[in-house]
Amino acid sequence: MTNIYSIGIDIGGTNTDIGLVSADGYCVARRNLPTATYYDASVYVADICAAIKEMMAEELVKTIDGIGIAAPAGNYYTGCIENATNLNFKGIIDLPKLFAEHLDVPVTVSNDANAAAYGELVYGGAKGMKHFITFTLGTGVGSGIVIDGKLVHGKTGNAGELGHAILIPSGRPCGCGRKGCLETYTSATGIRRTALELLEQHPEYDGVLSKVPQEELTSKHVGDAAQAGDPLALEVFELTGNWLGIALANAVAFSSPEAIFLMGGPVKAGEVLMRPVRESFKKHLCFVYDNSVEILVSKLPGNEAAILGAAALTKAQ
Amino acid sequence: MTNIYSIGIDIGGTNTDIGLVSADGYCVARRNLPTATYYDASVYVADICAAIKEMMAEELVKTIDGIGIAAPAGNYYTGCIENATNLNFKGIIDLPKLFAEHLDVPVTVSNDANAAAYGELVYGGAKGMKHFITFTLGTGVGSGIVIDGKLVHGKTGNAGELGHAILIPSGRPCGCGRKGCLETYTSATGIRRTALELLEQHPEYDGVLSKVPQEELTSKHVGDAAQAGDPLALEVFELTGNWLGIALANAVAFSSPEAIFLMGGPVKAGEVLMRPVRESFKKHLCFVYDNSVEILVSKLPGNEAAILGAAALTKAQ
Repeated sequence: MTNIYSIGIDIGGTNTDIGLVSADGYCVARRNLPTATYYDASVYVADICAAIKEMMAEELVKTIDGIGIAAPAGNYYTGCIENATNLNFKGIIDLPKLFAEHLDVPVTVSNDANAAAYGELVYGGAKGMKHFITFTLGTGVGSGIVIDGKLVHGKTGNAGELGHAILIPSGRPCGCGRKGCLETYTSATGIRRTALELLEQHPEYDGVLSKVPQEELTSKHVGDAAQAGDPLALEVFELTGNWLGIALANAVAFSSPEAIFLMGGPVKAGEVLMRPVRESFKKHLCFVYDNSVEILVSKLPGNEAAILGAAALTKAQ
Repeated sequence: MTNIYSIGIDIGGTNTDIGLVSADGYCVARRNLPTATYYDASVYVADICAAIKEMMAEELVKTIDGIGIAAPAGNYYTGCIENATNLNFKGIIDLPKLFAEHLDVPVTVSNDANAAAYGELVYGGAKGMKHFITFTLGTGVGSGIVIDGKLVHGKTGNAGELGHAILIPSGRPCGCGRKGCLETYTSATGIRRTALELLEQHPEYDGVLSKVPQEELTSKHVGDAAQAGDPLALEVFELTGNWLGIALANAVAFSSPEAIFLMGGPVKAGEVLMRPVRESFKKHLCFVYDNSVEILVSKLPGNEAAILGAAALTKAQ
């Protein structure tokens, strides 16, 4: 039996990660391109395709079944990157067309949060599940929703933007121009914001977080401090967990999933985040869903999750 | 061509409405049974089936393609009524089994909110749509979610309980035991609650609503007063519309529908409700969905909406 390989490409504003992925979910080769140095999308795609051919030659892989691309503002329906705000490529970039000049395989495009959900379905903890949701806590909060084994794209292709569901009406200002979006509270950036608020409210606090210059403080500092038992950091995660638990309970009222998977930097803090999340989730879940949903940490390896998610898009239905 | 008829049954705590519905969505005959007088489900179903046979004989209809039943706690997957709190029938009532003793046609069961969504899809304003959501404002707030032309049932069969998504964390106490659920703000009961709050805050107000004994005040009083230009009633609908607009915007971030349909008593107040709903929706909608969603009033006739919704379940995929 010939093993079937796929290509996963994770396009970020700074870097582009390209991986050759085996059917059982191993990334057998990787390449990296500096996205921000490219201004011409056709040159950029030509270089990506050269890297793909290089990896295939090295690994003696003759054929691939497809290319999956996770891109900012990537539209599943059109395959285009549409007016991405953090890329040098402006307007509409037709990825399938650009790739077709170099490689004759299907190209599937989506945003990184949707790719993460497919990664979990194809290679991770959601194998065999029909209904689940993933939340990626990063600079923002991304989400991907799977119902009946299929990712929800909706009319626009932009379904599943739960980071921009309003958690607290008239709450924290969000980069999207509105107020109270989930991601202002539970993203890595939101965690930093909560920590700064608590530091201001507690001038008497002289723990480890007070030693970090405020402009350098990140959610990683807070996570490390919480794991070491720092009371202010623990309080940040109590608040974050409470907010996230409400959002997860609300998501369940929508699609009644079997599981919700959490991923991203702040999730690495482990139980200091997951315990308050689960407590809040249980408290805020409508009783008709009692004991029907598990809150889980993503089973994808952190350093390959984005590539695996992108590669999993080649299996999208 | 023989016209195909379906049966729609709307089971309420007090009354059961049974209708013979033509393929083009006309309820050609109706019967009514007093649900609350029955204690034995098999006697109840026998009487329903007798009424169905009577209507078919009267209308010279020889065959029906199915029976759709909208029931409190009706589970789509099992066809059972499961521990309904406002029916005399306790435990698990296996409707398909009970009906099979009298009529040899498929029986499809769901709750009334899901039936309403199917009614809109098959007979109403959502004909031909792939992605939409319905909100029914009644004693509570029910919702039905259609994605890719199919109703979302989820793992439990209870997906789409958006009336119990938390709108305001730590907000108004809800009958479900939690706080801040959407339905505590935007159901008919929620509108009454808002009116009572405003009446208490404004002892100087001596408009029409101050003349209604508080225990008798309903959302209909508020709607009539708002339509007549009463300032307190209009303020109630401003608040209600603002809350509902946030909830609708949040629902869009989930499934990116083409349209959201509103139905139920308070919607009959018309523009005094719909204008603030649309304004709030526009204000709170994430920009990626701009101009992609319409907020519409249900196109089903109010007095037959429940029967048509139930009948539409026979077309469920």
